[in-house]
Amino acid sequence: MKNYTKIFQGTAFSSKSSKEIQILKDYLFCINANGLIEKVIAPEDDDYQILLDAYRNEENFHRLAEGQYFLPGFIDLHVHAPQWAQAGTALDIPLYDWLNTYTFPIESKFADLDFAKNVYQDVVSTLLANGTTTALYFATVHKEASLLLAEICAEKGQRGLVGKVVMDNPEQSPDYYRDADTPTALADTEEFILAVKELAKSTKQGVYPVVTPRFIPSCTDDALKGLGELAAKYDTYVQSHCSESDWEHGYVQDRFNKNDAFALHDFGLLRDKSVMAHCNFLDDDDAGLFTETGTAVCHCPISNAYFANSVIPIAHLHAKGVEIGLGSDISGGFSPSLFDNARQAVISSRMLEDGVNTTLPAQERGMPKSRITINEAFYFATAGGGESLSLPIGRLAENYTWDVQIIDTALDSAKLPIYDANEDLHDVFQKIMYLTRPENIREVWVQGEKVHSRK
Amino acid sequence: MKNYTKIFQGTAFSSKSSKEIQILKDYLFCINANGLIEKVIAPEDDDYQILLDAYRNEENFHRLAEGQYFLPGFIDLHVHAPQWAQAGTALDIPLYDWLNTYTFPIESKFADLDFAKNVYQDVVSTLLANGTTTALYFATVHKEASLLLAEICAEKGQRGLVGKVVMDNPEQSPDYYRDADTPTALADTEEFILAVKELAKSTKQGVYPVVTPRFIPSCTDDALKGLGELAAKYDTYVQSHCSESDWEHGYVQDRFNKNDAFALHDFGLLRDKSVMAHCNFLDDDDAGLFTETGTAVCHCPISNAYFANSVIPIAHLHAKGVEIGLGSDISGGFSPSLFDNARQAVISSRMLEDGVNTTLPAQERGMPKSRITINEAFYFATAGGGESLSLPIGRLAENYTWDVQIIDTALDSAKLPIYDANEDLHDVFQKIMYLTRPENIREVWVQGEKVHSRK
Ligand SMILES: [Zn+2]
Ligand SMILES: [Zn+2]
Repeated sequence: MKNYTKIFQGTAFSSKSSKEIQILKDYLFCINANGLIEKVIAPEDDDYQILLDAYRNEENFHRLAEGQYFLPGFIDLHVHAPQWAQAGTALDIPLYDWLNTYTFPIESKFADLDFAKNVYQDVVSTLLANGTTTALYFATVHKEASLLLAEICAEKGQRGLVGKVVMDNPEQSPDYYRDADTPTALADTEEFILAVKELAKSTKQGVYPVVTPRFIPSCTDDALKGLGELAAKYDTYVQSHCSESDWEHGYVQDRFNKNDAFALHDFGLLRDKSVMAHCNFLDDDDAGLFTETGTAVCHCPISNAYFANSVIPIAHLHAKGVEIGLGSDISGGFSPSLFDNARQAVISSRMLEDGVNTTLPAQERGMPKSRITINEAFYFATAGGGESLSLPIGRLAENYTWDVQIIDTALDSAKLPIYDANEDLHDVFQKIMYLTRPENIREVWVQGEKVHSRK
Repeated sequence: MKNYTKIFQGTAFSSKSSKEIQILKDYLFCINANGLIEKVIAPEDDDYQILLDAYRNEENFHRLAEGQYFLPGFIDLHVHAPQWAQAGTALDIPLYDWLNTYTFPIESKFADLDFAKNVYQDVVSTLLANGTTTALYFATVHKEASLLLAEICAEKGQRGLVGKVVMDNPEQSPDYYRDADTPTALADTEEFILAVKELAKSTKQGVYPVVTPRFIPSCTDDALKGLGELAAKYDTYVQSHCSESDWEHGYVQDRFNKNDAFALHDFGLLRDKSVMAHCNFLDDDDAGLFTETGTAVCHCPISNAYFANSVIPIAHLHAKGVEIGLGSDISGGFSPSLFDNARQAVISSRMLEDGVNTTLPAQERGMPKSRITINEAFYFATAGGGESLSLPIGRLAENYTWDVQIIDTALDSAKLPIYDANEDLHDVFQKIMYLTRPENIREVWVQGEKVHSRK
């Protein structure tokens, strides 16, 4: 019999496909020293009882209590870590004003490493407490503070993909908050990449540098070109914003006479390791380019209600074969929870399908076949995020990492409405997706290590 | 110096108007034996220091800790209490199927008083834990179980307005779940009204019977007429669903050749004490009738995304002078939290204003001037709900009841992102509205009594 580092026993939910949930009722999950799921064993398998007998009284055996379930940890593909300091505020103004009146001033404060440490520790802890085991972060233009964010992820056990933001275009970035000049922006990015790669060597769960032009308006052509070259040279992740709002979409059209997707591609910024936030105004040619290059869309449903002037046709893009994950977009989106964002993804898709304007007849109001189910929203928050990042995360399956959240549905202070001990597990899954609060998330594990727990 | 039963000291947020928040920084709230706010005293008032000196060491003096704030308790104007048992499930099917395949079967189980007790205790406790101090409930057709719900509200200290549901139309209600016949429906309703009025005599915070035709399709003309007469005879509240979805709106047009509002009015069901859920398809004449009769609209933004085929033009209706409150519509809406519903009310209004369909040009996409702010959503959840019910609730002001939730923004396990001790209190308010979780709600008081607390 094989030796495992840890064994977990309990009922788990994972994606079978984007539309179907796989229910692993009372399975054993055998974890190895690297934090990977080496073996998944069903109760009817031969080894089940043998393993159970061998491990059940050991310290490294973990059995879920009645009413508890495993979910894969969530993968948040779009977080502005510094903006946690202003989450929930100033959501009544347009994107352009929001950036210049609120967001750039607060991001500029991250030159101060003490302030940065405070906020970054909170945002990483908050995301872990909300079940997010992997996060793709925008930091700020500051190289040191951005590295600090990567260090905090490493230390707290979250899988962090972190970008030092580049914004060197004086026409679209304020004097008090931008890269000194284009060569400095590129040199700082390269140093940042090297420093994070160094940090990664001692980080079990992984930490990754991300090439991060804020969005096309913020960057000069030279910066965009240089960043594309750095991404290729070091084979890094790339993140940016793409075709988010009417204003931004129009700006890129004016400057390049093409859509964001093709402009970004010209600079070498659409790669298999690229994740583009929002993408509401992607047309079918843009979507084809995404599919071809392996670029993923990060859907940020809460943020979009405030800043994207529309609902992204996510079912349509998914049907076209585009990789899709979910993002909180703190603080364009106020919530640090991908549960909240999964719920809003379903709600927004229903509004796109049915339409919104009651003065129109039903058949002219919406866009048929736009809805997604909660199963699909769950898929985007887990397996879809893993595919977007090309990492073995987001599923509870062999050779995936042991990144899980343990949900307690029977918690006294936040009991889920389950009245039948034999309730259909599909219904239990839906109740978990719609009703889980952070307090129901009792433990969070990343790469086989416990990184968050509540008593 | 006046004797007060209790004095509270702290910073409170209340509505100054539907658009403006009143900030009461470090005020004293003096509560009398009836649980009313007898006096609100500002730090600059003469009595402030005198009262503080007199009470500060007494047991009935309550001072908020650093980082804690008072909000008025929320008023949920639309809850199907029995549906808590299925909250979060089956949201992928149309209203008609949802009712017949899921909802009616579960409601029929409330003939069993043990089952009813279980679910009703949970739903009342859950709403209190979410800051809801007053709730307008649909129970089921069962007279006894409906009375049990009123008793549980009375006992747990929530201000409950409860309706025994009437559905006597065999064409639209299943055999296993409807009133035996029209006379029985009316007789049961009358007995229920009398029993709740009796219970009210010993209930400090109030408990009220509500005449409750489920919605027009469920009821015969005779039942609707009889219920209008009962409402007049006993001067009770009335609740129903009105112009919710394309299907329901069309059904009433077919049956009465008029919109719901005028049909309900013909039966005497639109009164100052009437609250109609949803009302998405109200036209301007309907809205005029609502204003004239004092009938309130209960906006249920989460539920509407699933079942109402549209976004209600709430800013437009409010501008027309219609009274508006907020509702969870458990379990058409999955969330028992009016924080969640206030957030969704803002989000939905933004989607109505900007539109949803990216293939349309911006100027054809949405309905201009449809957005509401978080201040307005807060108003609907508090003062607007109070006005809808014509009760002195929903504001922290003299002669209003002491119905409050105490929000802790500094809680270790769910700290709100406040980094500046002197942060603008408008920003603190927005962070509270967007980021509060049930665990941040440390205490809930109704009519001067503590009804929920967390250690
Ligand atoms: Zn963003
Ligand atoms: Zn309803």
